[in-house]
Amino acid sequence: MTESGRSIFFSSKPSISACASIAGPKEGKGRFGDLFDIVLEEDLLGQISWEMGESEMLRRTAELCCKKIGLSISDAEAFLSGDLNNQIIASTFAARALEVPFFGLYGACSTFVESLLLGAMLVDGGYRKNALCAASSHFCTAERQFRYPLELGTQRPPSAQWTATAAGAVLVSHSSAKSIARITAGTIGKVVDRHIKDANHMGAAMAPAVCDTICAHFKGTNTTHKDYDLIATGDLGWIGKNILMELLKEHDLQIPDEKLIDCGASMYYAEQDTHAGGSGAGCIAAVTCAKLLREIEDSRLKRILIVGSGALLSWTSSQQGESIPGIAYAAVLEGEPNE
Amino acid sequence: MTESGRSIFFSSKPSISACASIAGPKEGKGRFGDLFDIVLEEDLLGQISWEMGESEMLRRTAELCCKKIGLSISDAEAFLSGDLNNQIIASTFAARALEVPFFGLYGACSTFVESLLLGAMLVDGGYRKNALCAASSHFCTAERQFRYPLELGTQRPPSAQWTATAAGAVLVSHSSAKSIARITAGTIGKVVDRHIKDANHMGAAMAPAVCDTICAHFKGTNTTHKDYDLIATGDLGWIGKNILMELLKEHDLQIPDEKLIDCGASMYYAEQDTHAGGSGAGCIAAVTCAKLLREIEDSRLKRILIVGSGALLSWTSSQQGESIPGIAYAAVLEGEPNE
Repeated sequence: MTESGRSIFFSSKPSISACASIAGPKEGKGRFGDLFDIVLEEDLLGQISWEMGESEMLRRTAELCCKKIGLSISDAEAFLSGDLNNQIIASTFAARALEVPFFGLYGACSTFVESLLLGAMLVDGGYRKNALCAASSHFCTAERQFRYPLELGTQRPPSAQWTATAAGAVLVSHSSAKSIARITAGTIGKVVDRHIKDANHMGAAMAPAVCDTICAHFKGTNTTHKDYDLIATGDLGWIGKNILMELLKEHDLQIPDEKLIDCGASMYYAEQDTHAGGSGAGCIAAVTCAKLLREIEDSRLKRILIVGSGALLSWTSSQQGESIPGIAYAAVLEGEPNE
Repeated sequence: MTESGRSIFFSSKPSISACASIAGPKEGKGRFGDLFDIVLEEDLLGQISWEMGESEMLRRTAELCCKKIGLSISDAEAFLSGDLNNQIIASTFAARALEVPFFGLYGACSTFVESLLLGAMLVDGGYRKNALCAASSHFCTAERQFRYPLELGTQRPPSAQWTATAAGAVLVSHSSAKSIARITAGTIGKVVDRHIKDANHMGAAMAPAVCDTICAHFKGTNTTHKDYDLIATGDLGWIGKNILMELLKEHDLQIPDEKLIDCGASMYYAEQDTHAGGSGAGCIAAVTCAKLLREIEDSRLKRILIVGSGALLSWTSSQQGESIPGIAYAAVLEGEPNE
């Protein structure tokens, strides 16, 4: 390992030149409802299944992202995306419709930040002029995939999180004169497993990986929480966020509560009955695009750290009695210095 | 799109400094049986399930790759891998055991070449000193995942391919003095769908994507088949390979039959009753590591093009009546000029 360990640096500071977010009806009634570019009225999007609905949501988000700065989707030089479905079909079918050179990724709910890091390398390294980095999730596809068919009406325990129906996409570009934010550094995830086996307790499964990545990031980039206006974690939910705060204290990292938000824990109002908060690959993707990047563009935030977290289980591994490994990727987003 | 379209160039010519392959008992009795580093005697590898067996095979392959040049797995700076299982659990559980910074990928049977391209960017771009690029597949996990439980004894149609139980891993490095081969260029895949719906006819589903990528690669890199000693496609099987030859002719590309091999079509002897040949993410991975890289190292081959192909279906998309989109990634591997 190099001195920087798992951290990487983007010397050209690739620009996020556009971003877009689409969210479902329930998410539209949540805390960030006014901020999403589009709030869906129904979650099938005119398709025959939730899976194809999710794929259509992702496709529309990617197109909207390009359209916002006057580009056509054919101007995108790469599409890096993943989702929670078996064999990431929401992304592959979106890529079929978009016809953009495609890299399929899987990092569970951390996929958006995994995508951002690889997209930034593609652009910073000069391999592509731009890269469309995206992720999606859908409540109905995720329940079918990881838990039980919705039709069963299974009761969800209080520790369960609500998979957000949402997608987010950013266009990472190096030639753009105007940028919303710049990606300057990041830290690659490492799989951490603390032997949680409950698929309805994802926050607990992922919190150790988030703690591990934050520690590795601070060390690798020689920064502390004081160097960031905000640290936004993926979708730990409020139980997972509390566990993270405890774990950080054990590592002598006292991050002030107001400086650390969790996208999942913040997405819904308490009365929306999502139990431990939101989750899903679309959660941090949509919140970053709808809220965090906007606040950087408006100079309300200067420099933030986003940490996407993923629970690396499958229905098969859970049935075989395996525990749930977690992973987390971190990316540094900065505003333009002169604005 | 830039002039080079979907092609990318690695100016530092990252080196493949080590490679390793492990294959199952049936593959060990096939054409390349003598070439794999390890041929397994049984396909569970002492684990409780085929999925965990596949993960263990991948883990051992990755470790062996590093060990071959005297490195420990902790010297690897990134692990890029994927497989055919839901939520790529063979790779994620291998990554848990290996404890190397991890990027989870999904490109179905094209994953190995997707991994090679991204790994080469990580190294060529200076983000990592090295990257371990890998993929695996397992007959028993794939049948359960995409078709029927083996216990059903379902008869396989003649167009069906046999998912290889195999894994391959290479260490891409930029600092290595000695290299087996160098990665000099590549072409990113694009999803192509010609509306094949038969999950037992994967070669037909993937051949159009392979044709599309070969055409894009020749155009993007300004080369023809004459610039390569060999073109090795992923796992079209012999039916898919025949379709590819027809499609190439339609594009006025007459590649001599002896210059184009398909890893899947070549892996087994006819009497092994695999019907249309081999397939699986581990197929091109293991054949590249066991055979092709060895022939480059021995100067029997100077410059080859490997084209990994993937069928982007899931059980869910098939049940919903969707067709099977295909994708293919290409990478140029060259020997050392002075050897």
